[in-house]
Amino acid sequence: MKTFRIFCNISVDAAAMKMLKESVTPHVLLEPGSTEGSLSTSDVAFGQPNPSEALQSGTLKWIHLSSAGYTRYDTDAFRQSAQKLGLQLTNSSSVYDSPCAEQLFSFMMAQSRGLVEALKTRTTNGGPVWAKLRYNCRTLTGQSVLILGFGAIARRLVELLAPFHMNISAYRRTPTGDEGLPMVSTEGLPAALAAADHVINILPENAGTISFFSAERLDEIKPGAVFYNIGRGTTVDQLALAEALNSGRLAAAWLDVTEPEPLPDEHPLWKISNCHITPHIGGGRHEEGEALVNHFLQNLERYAHEKNLQDRVI
Amino acid sequence: MKTFRIFCNISVDAAAMKMLKESVTPHVLLEPGSTEGSLSTSDVAFGQPNPSEALQSGTLKWIHLSSAGYTRYDTDAFRQSAQKLGLQLTNSSSVYDSPCAEQLFSFMMAQSRGLVEALKTRTTNGGPVWAKLRYNCRTLTGQSVLILGFGAIARRLVELLAPFHMNISAYRRTPTGDEGLPMVSTEGLPAALAAADHVINILPENAGTISFFSAERLDEIKPGAVFYNIGRGTTVDQLALAEALNSGRLAAAWLDVTEPEPLPDEHPLWKISNCHITPHIGGGRHEEGEALVNHFLQNLERYAHEKNLQDRVI
Repeated sequence: MKTFRIFCNISVDAAAMKMLKESVTPHVLLEPGSTEGSLSTSDVAFGQPNPSEALQSGTLKWIHLSSAGYTRYDTDAFRQSAQKLGLQLTNSSSVYDSPCAEQLFSFMMAQSRGLVEALKTRTTNGGPVWAKLRYNCRTLTGQSVLILGFGAIARRLVELLAPFHMNISAYRRTPTGDEGLPMVSTEGLPAALAAADHVINILPENAGTISFFSAERLDEIKPGAVFYNIGRGTTVDQLALAEALNSGRLAAAWLDVTEPEPLPDEHPLWKISNCHITPHIGGGRHEEGEALVNHFLQNLERYAHEKNLQDRVI
Repeated sequence: MKTFRIFCNISVDAAAMKMLKESVTPHVLLEPGSTEGSLSTSDVAFGQPNPSEALQSGTLKWIHLSSAGYTRYDTDAFRQSAQKLGLQLTNSSSVYDSPCAEQLFSFMMAQSRGLVEALKTRTTNGGPVWAKLRYNCRTLTGQSVLILGFGAIARRLVELLAPFHMNISAYRRTPTGDEGLPMVSTEGLPAALAAADHVINILPENAGTISFFSAERLDEIKPGAVFYNIGRGTTVDQLALAEALNSGRLAAAWLDVTEPEPLPDEHPLWKISNCHITPHIGGGRHEEGEALVNHFLQNLERYAHEKNLQDRVI
């Protein structure tokens, strides 16, 4: 088996780093703290290498990103250069798809059971406050969902939603036909937004998605619907979202991502009681470092045997 | 078809009552507000009839309760008398099983994603507060669940948990063999409690379940596990539960039911930050009255055609 020189600038806990060092043999790990220059002599990069330096390396053939997001690499220029060089790019979306999907799902469940309000309320059974809390509870069964951005997170979310028998459709940049559910075209988006009870934004950030949810598009969403964002904060016009919540058109918003993070203290979204914000923890999982390293090692095994890489994005 | 006189003391909204009146023909509805005496001339009772008056009626053959709980009827004396009289008792558990299961599930998801704390935290990506929030996040996949009380709510919960591939076992008074998952015996309970990451109490209230979760039994639960109660508050020694939380043995408790409801303001459980209490809203659903009436009408149809009744408990 060929042995590779692996540039590595991941940031994980000591136990995960120890596991990587012990398991990577016979390949050579260029440890974190090595100079960026080592990119120029490495075959593989694991972490967050600088995109232009990666393209200038004469030897690099595969980058495995330690994140699910790959905004810095998602440009026409990078794609074209990578293609010329025979450079593959994979990401760690398999590590983050389940946690992100579960985070989104926890938002949907909390919303449907009125959990935030109920946890704050001490009331007597049978009284009007109690009756209102109960009346505002929903079951998800039979409701409709529109998912924007259909990658690994969305696929996992669809699995989690299966027992609820919801009406799910999705929108993505380039449908592949294997999504297994009705796909919405760009032309069909207004009608789909006007029909969904839950609008779920998992769009990545790129030139085509900045402010995707503009004031106009937010206005196409069905009155009373719930808006979720676990993609990137930049894909939403946040002042327009605040307006849609303040006017009562949207029932609620649940955001794990904002622009910037955190929002400044004076931002209107902080003041809206039905705007629920978590600080970009969707990908969080107890054994994150270990999972990242394991995922890379599995892909390294595939690479060494010239098999197709998992989570390839370029 | 035989026509029945139906005693009715349900409490639902006007739309649901209108639907009941319009759909119940050719049977005769003895409307809410009729004297309790009408029980003595009715064939069927829908609502919450007084148990001893129901037994004294010379004509009553079927009671359909408008609740899932049936504590007042769940006595040896009532069971024996009902059997002698050929009196059937059904409840509305099919109306409440999905909402209750979803409520429980919303607790599990909120706990596993640290939602209560995350929603209160404004923090910067990459900082120590952020890293701790992410580290405390879990995915449910692979964790273990013990369900105590295995009726309709538990069955629905098991369906909802299916995509997570958890290790689920259950305990119930009288296993029937059709539960479809490993059942724990009374002798096996200590070991099962010591193994489960999530201990879910859906026990009904009866002579055998009062203070079922005594200090001793709570002490058998695995350190770091999470305790949930959506059955009845009386099945738990609440001061012992407060002690188990304060000592750090249990990671958290999620309670939709307490004894009494609400707990008095000075109760120690209110002061424990990882004890999360909602005010008995588990059964809440937007169209509750309509669902209750529909469920009764479906059972009435069965009754009129001498078919087996749904949700029969006696």
